[in-house]
Amino acid sequence: MAENCVVILAGGKGTRMKTEHPKVLCQVLFKPMLSWVLDACATAGLPAERTCVVTGYQKEAVEALVVSKDPRYQTVFQEQRLGTGHAVMMAESFLAQNAGGNVLILYGDAPFIDPQTIRSSLAVHQQNQNAVTVVTAELKDPAYYGRIVREGDRLQEIVEYKDATEAQRQIHEVNSGIYWFRISALQKALAGLNNQNTQNEYYLTDTIRILRESGEKTEAYRTENSRVILGANSRTDLLALNETAKQQIISQHLENGVEFVSLDGVLIGPDVVIGPDTCILPGTILRGKTVIGAGCTIGPDSLLEDTIVGDSTILNSVQAYQSVIHDHVKIGPFCHIRPNSEIKSGVKIGDFVEVKNSVIDESTAVAHLTYVGDSDVGKRVNFGCGVVTVNYDGLHKHRTQIGDDCFIGCNTNLVAPVTLGNGVYTAAGSTITDDVPDGALAIARSRQEIKEGYAYQKLGDKIRRNKK
Amino acid sequence: MAENCVVILAGGKGTRMKTEHPKVLCQVLFKPMLSWVLDACATAGLPAERTCVVTGYQKEAVEALVVSKDPRYQTVFQEQRLGTGHAVMMAESFLAQNAGGNVLILYGDAPFIDPQTIRSSLAVHQQNQNAVTVVTAELKDPAYYGRIVREGDRLQEIVEYKDATEAQRQIHEVNSGIYWFRISALQKALAGLNNQNTQNEYYLTDTIRILRESGEKTEAYRTENSRVILGANSRTDLLALNETAKQQIISQHLENGVEFVSLDGVLIGPDVVIGPDTCILPGTILRGKTVIGAGCTIGPDSLLEDTIVGDSTILNSVQAYQSVIHDHVKIGPFCHIRPNSEIKSGVKIGDFVEVKNSVIDESTAVAHLTYVGDSDVGKRVNFGCGVVTVNYDGLHKHRTQIGDDCFIGCNTNLVAPVTLGNGVYTAAGSTITDDVPDGALAIARSRQEIKEGYAYQKLGDKIRRNKK
Amino acid sequence: MAENCVVILAGGKGTRMKTEHPKVLCQVLFKPMLSWVLDACATAGLPAERTCVVTGYQKEAVEALVVSKDPRYQTVFQEQRLGTGHAVMMAESFLAQNAGGNVLILYGDAPFIDPQTIRSSLAVHQQNQNAVTVVTAELKDPAYYGRIVREGDRLQEIVEYKDATEAQRQIHEVNSGIYWFRISALQKALAGLNNQNTQNEYYLTDTIRILRESGEKTEAYRTENSRVILGANSRTDLLALNETAKQQIISQHLENGVEFVSLDGVLIGPDVVIGPDTCILPGTILRGKTVIGAGCTIGPDSLLEDTIVGDSTILNSVQAYQSVIHDHVKIGPFCHIRPNSEIKSGVKIGDFVEVKNSVIDESTAVAHLTYVGDSDVGKRVNFGCGVVTVNYDGLHKHRTQIGDDCFIGCNTNLVAPVTLGNGVYTAAGSTITDDVPDGALAIARSRQEIKEGYAYQKLGDKIRRNKK
Repeated sequence: MAENCVVILAGGKGTRMKTEHPKVLCQVLFKPMLSWVLDACATAGLPAERTCVVTGYQKEAVEALVVSKDPRYQTVFQEQRLGTGHAVMMAESFLAQNAGGNVLILYGDAPFIDPQTIRSSLAVHQQNQNAVTVVTAELKDPAYYGRIVREGDRLQEIVEYKDATEAQRQIHEVNSGIYWFRISALQKALAGLNNQNTQNEYYLTDTIRILRESGEKTEAYRTENSRVILGANSRTDLLALNETAKQQIISQHLENGVEFVSLDGVLIGPDVVIGPDTCILPGTILRGKTVIGAGCTIGPDSLLEDTIVGDSTILNSVQAYQSVIHDHVKIGPFCHIRPNSEIKSGVKIGDFVEVKNSVIDESTAVAHLTYVGDSDVGKRVNFGCGVVTVNYDGLHKHRTQIGDDCFIGCNTNLVAPVTLGNGVYTAAGSTITDDVPDGALAIARSRQEIKEGYAYQKLGDKIRRNKK
Repeated sequence: MAENCVVILAGGKGTRMKTEHPKVLCQVLFKPMLSWVLDACATAGLPAERTCVVTGYQKEAVEALVVSKDPRYQTVFQEQRLGTGHAVMMAESFLAQNAGGNVLILYGDAPFIDPQTIRSSLAVHQQNQNAVTVVTAELKDPAYYGRIVREGDRLQEIVEYKDATEAQRQIHEVNSGIYWFRISALQKALAGLNNQNTQNEYYLTDTIRILRESGEKTEAYRTENSRVILGANSRTDLLALNETAKQQIISQHLENGVEFVSLDGVLIGPDVVIGPDTCILPGTILRGKTVIGAGCTIGPDSLLEDTIVGDSTILNSVQAYQSVIHDHVKIGPFCHIRPNSEIKSGVKIGDFVEVKNSVIDESTAVAHLTYVGDSDVGKRVNFGCGVVTVNYDGLHKHRTQIGDDCFIGCNTNLVAPVTLGNGVYTAAGSTITDDVPDGALAIARSRQEIKEGYAYQKLGDKIRRNKK
Repeated sequence: MAENCVVILAGGKGTRMKTEHPKVLCQVLFKPMLSWVLDACATAGLPAERTCVVTGYQKEAVEALVVSKDPRYQTVFQEQRLGTGHAVMMAESFLAQNAGGNVLILYGDAPFIDPQTIRSSLAVHQQNQNAVTVVTAELKDPAYYGRIVREGDRLQEIVEYKDATEAQRQIHEVNSGIYWFRISALQKALAGLNNQNTQNEYYLTDTIRILRESGEKTEAYRTENSRVILGANSRTDLLALNETAKQQIISQHLENGVEFVSLDGVLIGPDVVIGPDTCILPGTILRGKTVIGAGCTIGPDSLLEDTIVGDSTILNSVQAYQSVIHDHVKIGPFCHIRPNSEIKSGVKIGDFVEVKNSVIDESTAVAHLTYVGDSDVGKRVNFGCGVVTVNYDGLHKHRTQIGDDCFIGCNTNLVAPVTLGNGVYTAAGSTITDDVPDGALAIARSRQEIKEGYAYQKLGDKIRRNKK
C-alpha cells in the first residue's frame, strides 16, 4: 500500500500582524503555530520524512524551526507567493516521490488541526476512493467562509461567500481549506489550474471544481472539531487563538481532576501534563514539556518551563526552567530554579533563593536569600540565610560539593572548587576557601570589638532628634 | 419552646472530581464548602451542639475539619451511601435528642446557603406550623432541577424534571433540596420511606409527598438568593462556584467603597473585611480572616492570609501570613511576612526581605535583602542591606533583641541569642556574637589589603579581549 | 479671530463611591479622570491658560493636581454646589476674559472625551455659527440618558428620559452634556437660568431651551466615540470605565503589532507607547509615561512606571520606576529598578537585585541578590552574588564608583564613598572601605581555620538521629 504524506503551507508574511517574523512562527500558548501543525501530523502517524513544509517569507527562520524539531522534515521554497495552488505546485517533486499515495494539505497558521480529524478524514478518503476529501466544519456563525454545497455525502460545490446566493449563505457548513488528495488526482488538477482572476493567483480551491468536472469523486468530511478552521491574520486573531486554546486545554485538565480557583492569568501549553488533585492558582504559566504530578499546588504567579514536578509538591511564586523537582518539595515564595537543577524529595526552599545547575538531595533546607549554583548538595543539609556558592572566579566556573548533614552558617561564602565533607559546620560570616573534613567546624572571621560611645558620637544628634 | 437544629449531609465522594478528598472539603475561595455551610448556620443562630454532620467517604478528614472548627459539633457516620433519605436516617438519635423542635436539612457541597434564608424560612415554617418548608429558588434557566408545583402558598408537589409535563417544565421555581422539617413529622415520614426505585436509594424528597398525603401542611419558601441551589459535582462546577462567589463578594466590597482597577486574579475569601478607599490591584489573593483598613493599596500580586492590616498601608507584591501590619506601613515589592510577625506604624520594608515571628517597632526601616527572624526590633532602627538575624545554631532557635535608634551595617550577622542596646552601630560586614551596650560601635572584620596588579595578572587577557 | 476656551466641572464629591477624595481625582488606569480630560483638551489645542477648572469638594486637592500639570491652568471655586448651570456661572470672569470666543463645557469625571470630538464639534460649531453645539452619541441601549430630538441638523429639543414620550424613548441619540457655546450666547442664557425645580438647582441643560426660544441656532453634533458619555458615580462604574479604557487601549496596541498572549492582569495606561513585535505577558502593568521599544518581552507580573525601555529587552517579573533601560537588556525574574537608574545596552540583571539611582554601563552583569545604589558602574563589570553598595552611613548617602572590567567578589561590601579603578578584583567576603587602584586585588577577610570534630560534637546526636 502506498504511503500518505502531508504538505504544509508556511510561506506567509503576516503583514497585518506588523511582525518581522514569519507568520507561522507566531506563537499560540508559547508554541509556534507551525509546531502545533507538525505535532498534530506526527501524532496522526504522518512521519517527518513524508512531511513537506512550503516556506516563503524568511525561509531560514522557518527552516530552522522545522529542522530543530526533526532534521528529516522536507522543505521547499516558494519564492514568489502566487496563491495556495502555486504553493502546492512548489512541492511537485515531493509529490512525485510519494506518488501512489495521498497527500494532506494543511496551513502552518491554522494550529488547531487535530490527529483525530486527520485520521478520520483519511479513513473516509481511502474507503470511498475519493480524488479529494474536503475537511469541513459546521459553524454557528459561518460568517464569510466558503459554503459547502452537498449532494448527500458527495461534495457538489464550494461556493465563496461573495459568490453565494442568499440560500447558500444560509448553509452553516464551511470549507476549512484542508484537503486529502489522491496524489495522482492532485497532480492532474494542478496542471489545470490558472490564475485568471482579479488577484492573478493560483487558488487551490479551484482544483476541487476541476476534479469534479473531470468526473472524479469529491467528498466533504465534516469534523467535530470546528476549531480547525481558525487561523490568524492579525494580532487580534492571534490573541483569539490563544484564548480558544486556553479554554480547550483547561477543559481537558478540569476533566482530569485538576483544580482551578480562577483561570485568570493561567496559561497552559498544549503539551503540559498535570495530575489529579493538583491545584493551579492564578497567574501561573506552564509551558513546554512541563509535567506535574498529583496533589500539588502550583502558583500563584509561577512560571514553569520544561520542568518535571513530582507529587504533593508546593511551588508558590516560583519560576523554574528545564529542571526536575521531586515529591513533597516546598519552594517559595519568590524563587528561581534555573536549568539543569534537580531538587529531591522533601527539600524545602524558602524565599529569594536561586538554584542553578545543581543537585539538592533529600530533606535539605535552603531557607532564604541564598544562591546554590554548580553545586552537589547532600541530604539534610541546612543552609543559613545569605549563603553563596562562589562558582565563578572571573575566568572559570567551578563546582561546590557539600556532604550530608552539613550546617552552613549564615552569609557563608563557599569559594569553589571546594568540598565539604559530611556533618560539616561553617561559622556565620565565613569565607570558606579550603576543603573541610567530615565533622569539622570551618571558621574564617574576625573577633568582635566594641567601641563604647562611638555611635552616640557619630549619630548622637540624629538619635536625640528622633527621641523628641 | 423547643430548640431547632440542623443536619448537614456531607458523605459524598466526588467521583467526577477525580479527587482523593471528600467532596465537601473541596474549597471555594480557599474555604472548604462544608465550612461555608457550618458558618452560615452559626451566623443564623444554630449552635454547634445542635448541628449534626453526616459523614461518609473519608469520615476522618471530614470529622477533623468539623472538630477543628468547634468540638461541640455532632457527627454521625453513614457507612453505606443509600441516598439522601438514608443519610438523614443516620441522624436518628440526634433528631431524638432534639425532639419537639425543627430540623434544617442542608448539603455540605452547596456552600451558598445564607443566614438570611435560614432565618426567614424558619420564621415562615414556624409561623405557619408547617410539617415541612421547602426552600425554593426562581431561576432564569431552571434546567433539570425539580419543579415546584404550588397551590398559592401551599406546596402541592415537587416534580422531577424527567417526570414533568411540558407545562410543568415551564415553571421556573425549583427545589433547592433544603428543608425545614418539624422533627416529629420528619421521623414519621422517614419511617415511611422505601427504596423501591431504579437506584435502590432512599430519597429524602419522597418525604414531602408522604407528609402531604398524610394531610400535613407543606409549604414552599422562595428565597431571593437563588445561589443556594448551586453545588459542585465536577471540577468545572467547582470553578463556576468560585467565579460566582468571587463576583458576589466583590460586588459587596465595591458597594463598601473598595476600589478595583481590574478583577483579574483578584480572589477574596468570604470572611475578609476591607475598608473604604482601599485599592486592590490585580493578582491579589486575600483569604482566611484577613482584615484590611481604609486607604490602603494592596497588590499587585500579593497574598494575605489571616493578616490584619491597618489604614493607609501599602503592600506591593507581598505575601503575608498570620501577622499584624499597622498603619502607614510600606512593604515591597517582593517581601515575605511569615506568621506571628507584627509590623508597627510607619515601618518601611523594601525588596527581598523576610520577616518571621518578630516585632518591628515604629518607623524602623528594613530596606533590602534582609532576614529578620525571631527578633524584637526597636523604633527608628535602620537595617543595612544583607543583614541576617542568625536565629538557628543547628539545634535551637534563639531571639535577637535590638534597641531603638540602632544602625545595623550592611551584611551584618547578628548571631542569636544576642542583644543590642539603644543607639548601637554595627560596622558593615561584621558578625556580632556578643551583646553590645547602648551607643557603642560593634565591629568584627579584617582590614583591607591591596595587592597591586593582581587582577591584571589574573584576568588580564580577558580584560584585554573585552577592550578590543 | 477670538480664541476658544474650556470650562471643566470638577466639584463633585462622589458620595456613592464612599471616598474621602474628590471624585474627579478617582483614577482610570492609574490616571486621575480629570487628567484624562485636561490632556484631551491640550491635545485638541486648547491651552492651559484658557482652561478653567471649577472646583468644589476638596478644592485644594483638585487645585494641586491641576497646578502640578501646568501652573497656567485657571481654577474657580464653587462653594455651594447648586447644579451644573451654577458651576458654569462661577466661571463668569473667566468667560468675560475670553469674550468673543467659544467655550467648551466638559466634566472632570467623564474621562473619555477625545481631541477628535473636540476639534470636529468645534469646526461644526464655528462653520454653522451656532449659539450652542451639543455633542451627542448614538447608543445601542440609550437607557436613561436625555434624548436628542432633531429637525434635520438642527437640535429641536433635549428631552430628559423621565419627561420623554414613548416615541421619544425610542430615540437612540443621547445628550453627552458636552457643549460648545458662543460665549456671548452662554452669558445671555446663564442670566436667564433659574432654579425653580424639585432639586432647586440651576441646570446647564436649560440654556439650550433658552437659546432656542430666543431664536438662536442650536445644533447637535453626533460623535463616533460614544464613550464620551461615560462617567462614574460608583466604584462599580469606575471599574467599568477601567475595563472600557483597557479594551480600547489594547485594541490600539494590537493594531500596532503588539503581541498579547492573554489580557489577564494587563493594564496599560493611556499615555504608554509600545513598539511592534513586543510581547506583553499577563500580570503586567504599564503606567505613566512609559515607552517600550520593539521586539521586547515584558512580563509576566511586571510593573513599569514612567520608564523608557529600548528594543529587544526582556523584563521578567520586574518592577521599574522612573528609569531608562536600553536595548538588549535582560532583567529578572524578581528585580526592582528604583527611580533615576539607567541600565545600558547588553546589561544582564538576574534575580533579587535592586538598582537605585545608579548608572550601569554596557554589558555589565549583576546576577543575583545584589544591591546597587547611588553608584556609577562601568562596562563589563561582573558582580558576584550578595554584593552590597553601602551607600548610607546613618547620616548621609554616598556614591560608589566602579570602573570598567571589574570583578566584584560575592558578599563584598563596598563602603561608599569609594572608588574602584578599572580591572579591579575584590575577594569574596571583603568589606572594601578604601579606594582601589586599576588592576589591583582588594581583600579584607580572615584566614580559614578548621576545628576538627567540632560539628560532630555540637550536632552529633542530631546527625546520628538523621542517619537512622
